[in-house]
Amino acid sequence: MKINDLVKASGEWMNGSGPSSDIVISSRVRLARNLANCKFPLSANIEEKAEILKIISSAIERINTDKNLSIISLNDITPLERKFLVERHLISKEQEEESGQRAVAISKNESIAIMINEEDHLRLQSLQSGLQLDTTFAMLNTVDDKLSELLQFAYDDELGYLTACPTNVGTGLRASVMLHLPALAITRHLDKAFRAISKLNLAVRGLYGEGTEAHGDFYQISNQITIGRSEEDILGDLRVVIDQIVAYEKSARTNLLEKELIKIEDKIWRSLGILQNARIISSEEVMRHLSAVRLGLQIGMVKGINLTELNEIFIFSQPAHLQIMQGHELDAEHRDILRAKFVREKLKNGKN
Amino acid sequence: MKINDLVKASGEWMNGSGPSSDIVISSRVRLARNLANCKFPLSANIEEKAEILKIISSAIERINTDKNLSIISLNDITPLERKFLVERHLISKEQEEESGQRAVAISKNESIAIMINEEDHLRLQSLQSGLQLDTTFAMLNTVDDKLSELLQFAYDDELGYLTACPTNVGTGLRASVMLHLPALAITRHLDKAFRAISKLNLAVRGLYGEGTEAHGDFYQISNQITIGRSEEDILGDLRVVIDQIVAYEKSARTNLLEKELIKIEDKIWRSLGILQNARIISSEEVMRHLSAVRLGLQIGMVKGINLTELNEIFIFSQPAHLQIMQGHELDAEHRDILRAKFVREKLKNGKN
Repeated sequence: MKINDLVKASGEWMNGSGPSSDIVISSRVRLARNLANCKFPLSANIEEKAEILKIISSAIERINTDKNLSIISLNDITPLERKFLVERHLISKEQEEESGQRAVAISKNESIAIMINEEDHLRLQSLQSGLQLDTTFAMLNTVDDKLSELLQFAYDDELGYLTACPTNVGTGLRASVMLHLPALAITRHLDKAFRAISKLNLAVRGLYGEGTEAHGDFYQISNQITIGRSEEDILGDLRVVIDQIVAYEKSARTNLLEKELIKIEDKIWRSLGILQNARIISSEEVMRHLSAVRLGLQIGMVKGINLTELNEIFIFSQPAHLQIMQGHELDAEHRDILRAKFVREKLKNGKN
Repeated sequence: MKINDLVKASGEWMNGSGPSSDIVISSRVRLARNLANCKFPLSANIEEKAEILKIISSAIERINTDKNLSIISLNDITPLERKFLVERHLISKEQEEESGQRAVAISKNESIAIMINEEDHLRLQSLQSGLQLDTTFAMLNTVDDKLSELLQFAYDDELGYLTACPTNVGTGLRASVMLHLPALAITRHLDKAFRAISKLNLAVRGLYGEGTEAHGDFYQISNQITIGRSEEDILGDLRVVIDQIVAYEKSARTNLLEKELIKIEDKIWRSLGILQNARIISSEEVMRHLSAVRLGLQIGMVKGINLTELNEIFIFSQPAHLQIMQGHELDAEHRDILRAKFVREKLKNGKN
C-alpha cells in the first residue's frame, strides 16, 4: 500500500453505515503494548528502535496471511505524507513527530492500524463507523491475540500490561467514540452533558484527540481509567454514557424541530449555501457548516448528498490531504481555495 | 391608481436600463414650490391645508390631459400603505408623518411624483434609472411649467422660489444620484472620495435620504446649495462629481478583479449562496449581500438573473412592501421569514 492508494480510497468508517450513525460518527479502540526486555521507544537509541521495528514487523508479516495489512515506514515518506496519515487517523501526532525508525501497518479498509515505535512499541487501533464498540474491540482483540503468540509483551501479573506512560498501564485500552452533537450545542446543553462525563472518569476532546479544540460540534468521548477493570467493563461503562448522550441529543433534536424549526432550517440552508458557493474557506469554517449540513441530512431536510460524501469532506478537506491530492505543497491561501473547490464539487447536488 | 396596482407594478427606474447603470442606480430631481399668499403647511391649520390641497389637486387634474397622473390621498390610506409609498420613494418620510390633508400624484411608470402638503405645498419629483440628470430634470421642468401657468408660486425676484426651509430657497432644486460603490467600499477608498464631495457642497447619504445609514454600499449624492446658481449649473456641477466617482469606482473594480479576483469571487458567491438559502433574513443583511450579487452581475460573474430582479428585491423586500404583498401586518420575525422566501424565489436562477 502506498500513500497514493489511500488518496483514492476512503476508510470503512467513512461510509457512515454503522449503528446510530445519525449521531455517532465512529468507534475507535486502541491497545498499548510493549515488548518485554526492550527499552520504551523514548529511551531506546537508534539501533534499538530499528531492532524493535524489525521484530514487530516480522511478527506482523507472519500474522498477515491474507495480505490484508500493509506496512508503511514513516521514515520512507515525506513529512507531508506523515501529516496525511495523522489526518486520516491512521497514526498519532506523537508518532508523526517522533524520531528514529517507526512504521504503521494498515488494513485495506483502514479499520486496523498498528503503529510501531509510537510512545509504546505497539499501538494497535481499530476504527469502525457508528456505535459498535464491542465489534471494534473484538476485531482488535483478535489481532492482539495473534501477535501475543509471536511476541512477548511486557506484562505484570498485578498491574497488567506495562506502558511508557502510567495512564495506560493495565489494559492499555483506550476506547473513544466520535459524536456529532449539534442540537445539544445549539440549545447550550453541552456543558451539562459533559460535566456528568468528567465525573465518570471519561474525557471529552475535539476532533483530533488530546489537546485539540472541538470544531463543528464534533466531540470524542473516551475512557480515562485503564487499570483495575476488565476490558469488557471499561467498554460497558463507556457504552452506557454514550447511550445516554445519544438519547439526550436525539431529544434535543426533536425539541428543536418542534420549537425552532425555521431557525434550524435557516442555519442548515445557509451552511449548505456557503459550502456550495465559497471560493476560499478554512478548515474550521468547513467543519462548522458541515455540522449543520450533516444535521440537515440526518433529519431528512437536505437531499441529494449522502453521509459518505460528508465524511469524505471531513477527511479530504484537511491541509495535508488537499496537498497530496494536488500533488505538491500549497500555502495556506491556496489550500483555502482548493478546499473550497473540493467542497463545492462534493456538495453540488445538495438540495431541498 | 390604488396601492395594489403599485404592488403588481415596478417603477421605470427599477428596470436598470439607464446610462451607467452598472454603477448609477437612479437619478432623482425634486423641486420645492409653494403657493403665493398661503401659509406654509407647517403653519397652516386644518382648513387651510384642505383648501391648499383642493387648489393644487384641481391644477394637477387640469394638466393631466393624458390621464398619466393619479392622485392618492394620504388620508384615505392606512399607515402601512403610507410606509409603502415611502419605501417606494414616492413620498417622503416627512410627508408620511405629517398631519392634515395631504396627497401625492403619481405617474403610471412612477417617474413623476407630486407631493402635496409636504414641508412645502408642492414637492415635484422625477426619478429615472441610471445617470440621466438632464432628462430627469427636463421631464420635471415641463410639469413645473404647466403647473406654474395655473398656480401662482411664491417667488421673490431676488431670492427666487420661497420655501418652508431656507435651505431650499432659490431654485428649490435638489438633485440626487444613487450610486453603488462596492469596489470603493472594499478597497476602503470611500472616505477619500466623500471628503472631496463635502468640500464641493454636496451631501452623501444612505439609501433613504437624510438621516439614514448606508446599507450595502449604496449612496445618494446630492447638491446642498439651491440659491445663487441656475438649475443647469447645479446639475452640471453634480454631474462632474458623479462622473469622477463613477470613473473612480470603475478603476477600483478593474484593480480588484486584477489583484483580488478570488476574494471578490468568494464574496459574491457567498452572498448569492446566502440569499438563495436563508430562511430568515433582515433588510440590512439583504442589502449587504445584494450589493455583492449586483457587483457579480455587473462584472459578468453571476448569470441567470437581471438588474430588474435585483432592484425589485431592493424595493419589495422592505417591511411595508412585504406586509402589503402578504395582505396583512406581520411582526419582525415573520417579515424576516417572508423576506427570505421572496428573495430566494427572485434569485433562484442565479448561477455561474
